[in-house]
Formats: sequence, structure tokens, C-alpha cells
Amino acid sequence: MSGKIPVGVLGATGAVGQKFVTLLEDHPWFELVELAASDRSAGKSYEEATTWRQYKPIPESLQHKTVKPCEPALDCRVVFSGLDASVAGEIEENFARAGYIVVSNSRNHRMDDDVPLLIPEVNPEHLELIKIQRARRGWSGAIVTNPNCSTIGLVMALAPIDRAFGVKRLIVTTMQALSGAGYPGPSAIDMLGNVIPHIGGTEEEKVETEPRKIMGALDGDHIRFSDFVISAHTNRVFVEDGHMECVSVELEKKATPDEVAGVLAEFKSVPQELNLPSAPARPVIVTAERDRPQPRLDRDAGNGMSAVVGRIRECPVFDIRFVVLSHNTIRGAAGAAILNAELMKTQGFLG
Amino acid sequence: MSGKIPVGVLGATGAVGQKFVTLLEDHPWFELVELAASDRSAGKSYEEATTWRQYKPIPESLQHKTVKPCEPALDCRVVFSGLDASVAGEIEENFARAGYIVVSNSRNHRMDDDVPLLIPEVNPEHLELIKIQRARRGWSGAIVTNPNCSTIGLVMALAPIDRAFGVKRLIVTTMQALSGAGYPGPSAIDMLGNVIPHIGGTEEEKVETEPRKIMGALDGDHIRFSDFVISAHTNRVFVEDGHMECVSVELEKKATPDEVAGVLAEFKSVPQELNLPSAPARPVIVTAERDRPQPRLDRDAGNGMSAVVGRIRECPVFDIRFVVLSHNTIRGAAGAAILNAELMKTQGFLG
Amino acid sequence: MSGKIPVGVLGATGAVGQKFVTLLEDHPWFELVELAASDRSAGKSYEEATTWRQYKPIPESLQHKTVKPCEPALDCRVVFSGLDASVAGEIEENFARAGYIVVSNSRNHRMDDDVPLLIPEVNPEHLELIKIQRARRGWSGAIVTNPNCSTIGLVMALAPIDRAFGVKRLIVTTMQALSGAGYPGPSAIDMLGNVIPHIGGTEEEKVETEPRKIMGALDGDHIRFSDFVISAHTNRVFVEDGHMECVSVELEKKATPDEVAGVLAEFKSVPQELNLPSAPARPVIVTAERDRPQPRLDRDAGNGMSAVVGRIRECPVFDIRFVVLSHNTIRGAAGAAILNAELMKTQGFLG
Amino acid sequence: MSGKIPVGVLGATGAVGQKFVTLLEDHPWFELVELAASDRSAGKSYEEATTWRQYKPIPESLQHKTVKPCEPALDCRVVFSGLDASVAGEIEENFARAGYIVVSNSRNHRMDDDVPLLIPEVNPEHLELIKIQRARRGWSGAIVTNPNCSTIGLVMALAPIDRAFGVKRLIVTTMQALSGAGYPGPSAIDMLGNVIPHIGGTEEEKVETEPRKIMGALDGDHIRFSDFVISAHTNRVFVEDGHMECVSVELEKKATPDEVAGVLAEFKSVPQELNLPSAPARPVIVTAERDRPQPRLDRDAGNGMSAVVGRIRECPVFDIRFVVLSHNTIRGAAGAAILNAELMKTQGFLG
Repeated sequence: MSGKIPVGVLGATGAVGQKFVTLLEDHPWFELVELAASDRSAGKSYEEATTWRQYKPIPESLQHKTVKPCEPALDCRVVFSGLDASVAGEIEENFARAGYIVVSNSRNHRMDDDVPLLIPEVNPEHLELIKIQRARRGWSGAIVTNPNCSTIGLVMALAPIDRAFGVKRLIVTTMQALSGAGYPGPSAIDMLGNVIPHIGGTEEEKVETEPRKIMGALDGDHIRFSDFVISAHTNRVFVEDGHMECVSVELEKKATPDEVAGVLAEFKSVPQELNLPSAPARPVIVTAERDRPQPRLDRDAGNGMSAVVGRIRECPVFDIRFVVLSHNTIRGAAGAAILNAELMKTQGFLG
Repeated sequence: MSGKIPVGVLGATGAVGQKFVTLLEDHPWFELVELAASDRSAGKSYEEATTWRQYKPIPESLQHKTVKPCEPALDCRVVFSGLDASVAGEIEENFARAGYIVVSNSRNHRMDDDVPLLIPEVNPEHLELIKIQRARRGWSGAIVTNPNCSTIGLVMALAPIDRAFGVKRLIVTTMQALSGAGYPGPSAIDMLGNVIPHIGGTEEEKVETEPRKIMGALDGDHIRFSDFVISAHTNRVFVEDGHMECVSVELEKKATPDEVAGVLAEFKSVPQELNLPSAPARPVIVTAERDRPQPRLDRDAGNGMSAVVGRIRECPVFDIRFVVLSHNTIRGAAGAAILNAELMKTQGFLG
Repeated sequence: MSGKIPVGVLGATGAVGQKFVTLLEDHPWFELVELAASDRSAGKSYEEATTWRQYKPIPESLQHKTVKPCEPALDCRVVFSGLDASVAGEIEENFARAGYIVVSNSRNHRMDDDVPLLIPEVNPEHLELIKIQRARRGWSGAIVTNPNCSTIGLVMALAPIDRAFGVKRLIVTTMQALSGAGYPGPSAIDMLGNVIPHIGGTEEEKVETEPRKIMGALDGDHIRFSDFVISAHTNRVFVEDGHMECVSVELEKKATPDEVAGVLAEFKSVPQELNLPSAPARPVIVTAERDRPQPRLDRDAGNGMSAVVGRIRECPVFDIRFVVLSHNTIRGAAGAAILNAELMKTQGFLG
Repeated sequence: MSGKIPVGVLGATGAVGQKFVTLLEDHPWFELVELAASDRSAGKSYEEATTWRQYKPIPESLQHKTVKPCEPALDCRVVFSGLDASVAGEIEENFARAGYIVVSNSRNHRMDDDVPLLIPEVNPEHLELIKIQRARRGWSGAIVTNPNCSTIGLVMALAPIDRAFGVKRLIVTTMQALSGAGYPGPSAIDMLGNVIPHIGGTEEEKVETEPRKIMGALDGDHIRFSDFVISAHTNRVFVEDGHMECVSVELEKKATPDEVAGVLAEFKSVPQELNLPSAPARPVIVTAERDRPQPRLDRDAGNGMSAVVGRIRECPVFDIRFVVLSHNTIRGAAGAAILNAELMKTQGFLG
């Protein structure tokens, strides 16, 4: 007996699922004991069912583990969901109804009134929504979500600025990595010497909407959305991991680039205070080099859990502008969900 | 005797110089008869002096031509300048003083009060500045310039919008091609799976300033700059040719995406009316596909002389947003200068 | 009436089919009048049925043409086949049986005893097999094939060497372009900063076998295969078009690199003598630069119909070694088939 | 006092020098105490003198260390040399003459009769040459070298095969990573969608010659070179790290692919027996997947110190063929030299 909390992964054979498996190996609090996936994979060994695409091999203890169907009969109470949006909605509800804590990276329930859309450094108090959720839906379990991969880096930079100076509106242009599209994702011949000025799904809408919920205030039984406005241009570039975003922000209260840099560099929050296992020492790392951040050089900052902000300078149109980079499959997906679960444990939500 | 106007190229061995050589081959009005470059190259045959990097071979008639020094003793009256900014300033002045018409792609004189910064479709009337320039400097020749490679595409999209609806301010994020940095430019290992959020020189300043001169009004002996404001974020991406720009614009007068698309698609100007040899049938091509323009697929539109605008849609922060692409070494450099010279010929400035 | 021979394309919506459409536009002898594809496409307009991925737009006359099913009811006697190997076998036979001349790029019938595997510069006399084929199968039509995309470049370099000095055996390592895999082909994330040492299908077997048929002798009713031996290593690299091959050859009769270069540079054959429309002036272009050929710079030599050979030097293990490059979707696919049809016309096989 | 052996790095600011610095951080036996570089860097702090390009930051203890000139006045007895070949020859001799043990990655002395060209798994006994070297040159120090980055992976696969079955001759085609060219190395625009069939210097000659010394026999005061023959084709591909090589080998004694795979998979040697800190558990890892090894997925095997061999199969021309991959800046450069030093320590050569 490890004394760790047993957890499972839904959608364990997919790109996000594999990242969960990798990041949960040797986790100090959680032990991955259940792998679930589509009916096509269920019944096979994990090794057989998955086209493994991580740099580290499949943890030895999981290679021969039998993949189960995504039904609420797993031998654990906490499940991480990396399910595809086409199926996540109903499956996650089935699990929550059956008493499971579903820590989800899928987009389906992110905007539900009673579902926390959580970044532990930004809105840990939104976890309180779980009580509303349970009361309203009659569930003994719960669903908690993390934001879209390009929302997270943006909000990690925006939130401290908002607290200090107030954010009124902003325009953001993203240059997003291939891994954000899952596997196999875009064709090599489409990406060779090219940029695609479009991300499938409703990426721009997500980047424009999710931050207003995350940075909104818990007001009784719901979140009062922040009222700033965002315009997002999203692009796919030939990068493996790491979403870059060029941001121009209008502030409520004037601030110099140095003041903004100071606020970002000093930003620490609940995960740092609680010393959560996956929390980076600094959620935001500020770089002064004129040509940074860069995806290949900076995405692994804080084990992929920090956002790196650079080129903080005055904006001739708004007030301040900068570039922010974050690792889209760690802080922007599986790592985000694990940090959420860590916060939930400390708040007593994992029972 | 070809009956064509004899022309020369200054900086003929460089990246822009080679593009001039390629684009002037078989030009109906101009015949390239003089190649000039640095002292290191002068005296050698062109073939020997240049590390040729174009897809078409060196025109046969120029292979064995002797490269001359960049001194005003060339046997032609019109010279195209692809000189490096570190030397262009003085050399171009020497030529203009000596009676040459210098059609320059270099940045040195772009912002001079009495030097036209020309896009023939946008501000052909600025050619009148040549008279002020000659009077003021006592030159029999003249210097005419074209804008920076990322300015041109932007202005080709902005100018028609400005005329129809008035541009108040805008935020633009560029994703610029490797060839914009000259040869050899960035290191392959720096660009592998990477984006560099910085362009050397003062790229952002140029993109923020040049459009205000180009779109300014000729007012007696000077240009009254347009008073809109621009904020530019510039990035280098792993693309051979073709600068992409994501633009959000605030307008004086509201306009729907369809109205903006209509104005852009119908835009024609002096070069089209005069049927200049290098003028594209349509300066701006509007695409309705949701994932276009793309550098590899769209940069050659109008033989590299058209800007391609796509994803025209409402901007939640400003009024309208879109993506514009233009070929940085054709419409953004050598092709721009050649079109300038063509316009000048029709206006009698080539004597 | 154009006076041209009406032709059709089978598999017109695929990658090879699109190349046929592009290359046949403005062909002096052939007029493309029929487009056929799978049942999924049949009945739609070509524009609607195809995801067009060529740099030139769909020829205007074909945009609204209705795609027909791949059944021998097309209004032309000659058809080019770019069909997928999973269906080409039977469909091509149906057409040949019904009297059509099938000029195929598909692999299915390449190794049939009575089917010519043709490179017009190398084995034009193999066309005689058509008579055997018709007699044996009772067909009024015929099937003629071109080799695999990596076989063609190799054989264009080998054949002149073989005639002059005799080829005993060789080892070849390919670095093949993405377009050889069709669309969408490999995933961008798999190819980013990577090489895949494997080509799907039976690529190595094809490269080892097809040259022995092509360079074999017509002997009564069959081809006596050449008896040299080939070992092929095939790799996929991050290149758009153009297959590179590093070749070491053992010769029957010693030859210096200069002698080999001479034989290759002087090589001309039937298509050049007949001045066929798609025949390059030189089937093989020899380059002396130490770092050429390169895919991006050299693949379009001879409009993509020439092979470029460089780095001809002594081999310490065998006799001679070199690098050969050829354009895999032009000389290695659609252009090859069109040249085959041109040769067939001059030999009276198109009726 | 750490009790570790103090060591220095010559050429500490270059690409190989930086790798030494990174790999020596926390080394159990060696402590990096001296950084030396060109006169341009000497006198500056290391942080100031170097354009750091590793993924890990500069070790804190070295950031402010003053870089010294490359003169034999360093406070350590062992120096690792990552010097450029243009200066390495004389500087390394100066150090050896002054009593330093020079463990070099530079090519200058590799082929000297009395200098070991060492791969600890393959020819540890060649260290005996040091005695000849000292006697002959009157040095109290010594020079020991490691092979070229593409030689090492090849020899790690060849040596076990040679011992078991005898290698007669072979043809190898390399696809080499960008980092092999140092920084900045090739231009991004040259490598975009391209392959360069040439490596500067005398790469092919090195790959053809060095293995015959490494796999040669120590015979009194010199190495009797192995008499097999190699033909090498070298290419640069768009890969960050990891040299791939396609190899066809003629054997003295027939062997099946399975037998060869067995010999490679079971290969262990002195570094494994001695459990040297940088020695991989398995010098050669055999993969059975049909599309492996791949640079991005496999180069870090054994912390970059293992060679990965795949696609072992019969060769129709010779006997056996396979693909081998090794990390060119770890096992092929800095890691190789460190393993050499580790072996030397256990043999008493570090005093």
C-alpha cells in the first residue's frame, strides 16, 4: 500500500491521456491505478492499445495493465479526463453522478454555470462552486475543469496585472504549437514553411470567453464574469510544444513596463503557499532578453508549469504590450488538471 | 538597340540585388546594363562575385558582366538600390547629386521630408515631392523609396479601408519570413520548431511610422502624416517568403466585414489604370476560405505583387479584424521598387 | 474543335490526379475532357469534389465539370490513371478491356509480364509489349505504366552508365519528400526535426526490382530482367518535393568520375530526338558544385522532368558514387505518365 | 573541498564547450573549476563571454567565473578540449607538454600515430599509446581524443558485429543534425524543406578513416589499422540533434539479422563492467519497430550515450543492413570525451 490516493485516467490512450500518464508517474500524492478509453481499446493491455508518443517510456507498472471502458466502475474515486470533446460531456457526467471527482481537461463543461474553470493561482476560491454543483445536480461526485491551452498562459499573465492595474480590454494574437491539435494533427506538407491562420474548433471564442469566467468573482451561486473584452487572432505554427501570444492591453490605471514586470515577477499565490507538488516556484517568469520567450528555449520553465513573459513595453495604442509563452500540453492541459487536483486535495474535496 | 531604358542595380550581389536582377530580366521597359556592388565584388564577373540564390539562373547576358563599384559613373540614368542600410545613405545621395534617379529599397531616406515613400496604388501623388527635393538639395537626380517589407502589405489593406471608413488606430502582429532578414539570416538551429518574437533593426518602429507617411496628404512642400496610431508586434517564423499580419482596426465609421471585403476586392488604382507592367490586376485579393491566406499557398498571388486578405470579421475590441499576407521580397522589396520606377516613367520622371 | 486528342484522368481528385490536371493544362497534343474519381466524388463538380492543393488554380474550364465514376464510359480513348493502388488493379483492367489506353502511375500492373514499365529515355522499345498484352488478354485497349517515384531518378542516372560501363550492383539510400506519401501524408509533429527511416508500402522492394525490368531487354514476348543487384535504404525527410538518392555503383568496366559525368551530361534519347512536348532538353543534368543537387534548388530542372546528378566521385568500396535528385510528383509520377503518352502517340499507339 | 578531480574546459564558450559545462555539472568524479577560451573572451565572466544555448541554465557557480586564456596556467591537471580545429592543434600540444591531460574532441590529433582515438567500449586498450606518446614527445601530460560525431555511432554498431562475424567492407549514408555544424551553423533558409548533400571539412574522409584506427589492433608502439573499407555519403538534414546512418555491411562470416541483433543487444564492455558514471547500461539498443530509430524520439537513449540500431535486415548486395542513430553532441562529442576521462581515471592516467 502506497498510502497515495488512487486515480484513473479517462481517454488514457490519447495525446492528453498519455501526458497524464507521464506526469502522474512518481507523483507524491496520486497513484495511477486505472486506465480507461474507448471501446476500441478496452480489454487490451495499455501497451497494445496505445500508440505511445512520449519521450519517456510507458511506466513499467502500466504496460500490461488492462484498459477499461469509460464507465463509472473504476477502482478509484478521482479521475482525470483527457476525453475528446465529442464524448466527454456525457461520460464525465456519468462519472460525477456516480460519485467520482472528475478533473477534466475537456471543454464540454467549462462554461457550465456551476462548474469551476480553475487555475489554482488565479481563482482557487471558485472551487466553492462544487457545492452548488452538487446541490443543483444531486451528485455526490463533481466536475472541475481547466481552461483551454491558449487561455491559460494568457490568464496567468493577465491576472496579476488585472489585480494591480485593472484590465479593460486587450487584443491577443497566438502562434500555437502542433501538439495543441492532438495526434496526428496537421499534415507535414501543410506546415512546411507555412503558417495556418486558423485553429479548428472555436479556439478564438474560447480565448475570448474563458478568461472572463476565470477572472470573474464568485457571487453567491455563480461567477460574475469580468467585464473586460478580448479579441483573439489564432494561428498554427511549426512548433512542437509551447503557445506564444502577443498581447496589447488597455489598463484601468496607468502603469509603466517596469511596474508591470515587477507585479508579474513577484506574483505568487495559493499553490506556491501550499507548496503543491506540481506548482512552479514562480507562476510567471519575466525575461528581459529582447528576443525571448521562445518556444523551444522557454517552454519547460518551471517544469512546463510557468508562463514566461517577455518584451514588456509600452503599447502606442493601449497601455502595455508583451509576449507570453506557456507549455500547452503541460500547463495548458494535463499539468493544469493535476495541479487542480492537488489544490482540491488540500481543500478536502478528494474526500 | 532595345529601345528600353538602361538601368543599373546598386548592391547587385545581395539578396535584394539578386531579386532585382531576376525581376528585371525581360522587363518590357527597362534593360539592366550595370551591376554595382561593394569594393570586394567590383572588378569580378557577376557570376564570380555573387552567391546566387534565386530559383532561376543568372540571366546569361549578365553572367560575365563586370561588377562595378558603387560610384556615380554607371552608364545608365536610373539605378535600383538594394544596398545595405550601413552604406546606402551616402551612396544614394552621391548618385542623386550626380543626376541619377535612385529607386531605393533601403530604409535610409524613407523618412526624409522631401523623399517620396511610395506605393503606387496608394500615394502616387507623393512623387511630386521630387520637385521639392531637387529644389531644396540642388540635385538633378532624385531619390524615391519604397516602404519596409512588412509595412507594404499592411498599407495595401489599410489604404482602401481608410478611404472608405477612416482608420483611427490598429494593432498588428506580424509573422515574418526568413528571407526578410537577408542571407544567411537566422540560423537553422534557432528556427527549428521555434518562433523568435523579435526582428532586428527597428522593425516595429518602421511598421508603426511608415504607414502614417504613406497614407499622409501632400501639403505644399511636405507630407502631413496621417494621425492614426499603430502598435506592432513583430515575429520571425520558419517560412521562406511571405509576411503574414494579424490586424485589428478601429474605424471612424462603422463597417461590416462584408463592406470591408467589398472595398478591398474592388480596390484598383493608378498602376492598374495605367496598366503598368508589374502592376497586379488586383492589388488586394480577398479570400473567403477560413484558413487562408497562407504564406506557401498565397504569396505568389499577382506574381507576388498582390496582397491577400482573409478572415475579415468583426473585432470585439475594435471594429474589424483580418489577416493580410504579402510577398516580402517581391511586393515588399524589389518588385515594389520596380513598380515605383514604372510609375515614374509614366509621369515623366525618368527623363 | 481543338484538334487535340481528348483524354481523361482516373482518380482526378487525388494528389497525383491533381498533378495530371495541372500538367495537362495547355498541353499541345492532349485535351483533358473527362475527370473520373470514386463514387464519393462522382456527380459533383470538380471544384466541389476536390480539395485542391496545387499552386496554380484549377483550370477554369474544369472547375464546373462534373466528375464521373471510374467506369469505362468516358468520352475519350486515352486515360491517365492516378488511382490508389487499392482500386487501380481492376479499374484499369476494365478500361483496357473496353478499348481504352490506360497510361498509369499506379503500381498494380507495373510488374506484369506483358505490361511496359516505361521511361521513354531508357526503354522506349518496351512499348512493343502492348502487342503481346493485347494478344494474350484479348484487349483492344492497353495498360502502360511508369515506375515508382524513387525508381525513376535512379534509373535515369543508371541507364546511361550501364550502357557505357555496365552496372553490376549498387547500394542506394533515399531521402524522400513528403509529397511522395500523398495527402495528408505524414503528421507535422512526426516530421518536426526528424527523419523517418521507413517508407510505407513496399518501397524498398520496388526500388530494388523495377530498375531490373526497365533496364532489361525485350526478348520475344517478355522482358529479360537485367541481372544487376540493388540494395535500397529508404527514408522520409522534411522536404516538400524532390527525392534525393545517394548511390554507390560497382561497374563492369572501370570508369573515372569524369567519364561518368561525360556520359550522363551527353545522354539524350528518343524523347529528345522526337522533341516530345514534355521531354527535357537534357534528361540528366550534371552539376559540379560540391553541395548540389538540393531538393529546393534543383527539383524544377527541366520543368521537373530532368534528373540532376552531382558529387560524382570515386567510391572506395565500389567504383563510382553520386547523388541524384528528381522531382517525385512530376518526373516521378504525373509528368512521367504524360511523357509516356507522348511517346505512344508518336509510335501510333493512341490510334 | 569536494574530493573531486578538478578539471578545466578549453574553448568553454563554444557549442561543444557549453555541452562540457552542462554535462560536467554534478559529475560525481570531476569538478569543473577552470574555463578557458579565446583572447576575445578571456577576462570576462563566463556569463558575459558566452552566448549560452543549452536548455539548462549556466551552473550558478560558473556564471561569474572569469574566463582565462587558453594557456597552460590553469589550476587543474585535466582539461577537456572543445577547441575549434583552427587553433586546437598547437594549444593542445602546449598543454600536454606542460603536464596536462588533454581529453580532446577536436580533430587535429586524432590520426597521430601515438594518440589514442578512443571509444571506451571498443578500444580501451589503446590508452596504452599514452606511454609511447610521452616517451616519444617527452611530455609529462598527454592527449587523448574521441572520434568524429558520425564515426562514433557507426563504430559502436560495427565493433560488436566485427568481433562476431568480421567486417569486410561497408557503405554508409549519413543524415546529420544541424548541431554537428556548431553554432550558428547552416542558415535556416538553406535548410527549409531541403537536404544538403555535403558536410564541410573532410567529413566523409573522417568517417572512412577513423573507424579503421579505432577498430585496429595495438601492435607494439602503434595501431595496426583494420583493413576493411568504408564508403561514406554524408548529408545535412533539418534535425536538431542525432545523426542517422544507413549502413550496408559485407561480413567475413555469414550471419542472419537475428544473430546480428543478438550480438548488438548483448554488447557490453569495459565501461559497463567498471560502471563508469557516464556509461550507458547498454551501449547499443536494438529496436524492432519498423520505423525506428528516429532522431527526435531515440537520440536521448541512455542519456544520449547509447547508439540505437534498427531495421536490421538482409542486404541483397552485401550481407546485412541497418540504421544506426546516436546523439552527436553527447555520445558524438562532449559525452564521449567525459567517458574517455572516466576510463582514464580508472586506469590511473589522471594521476
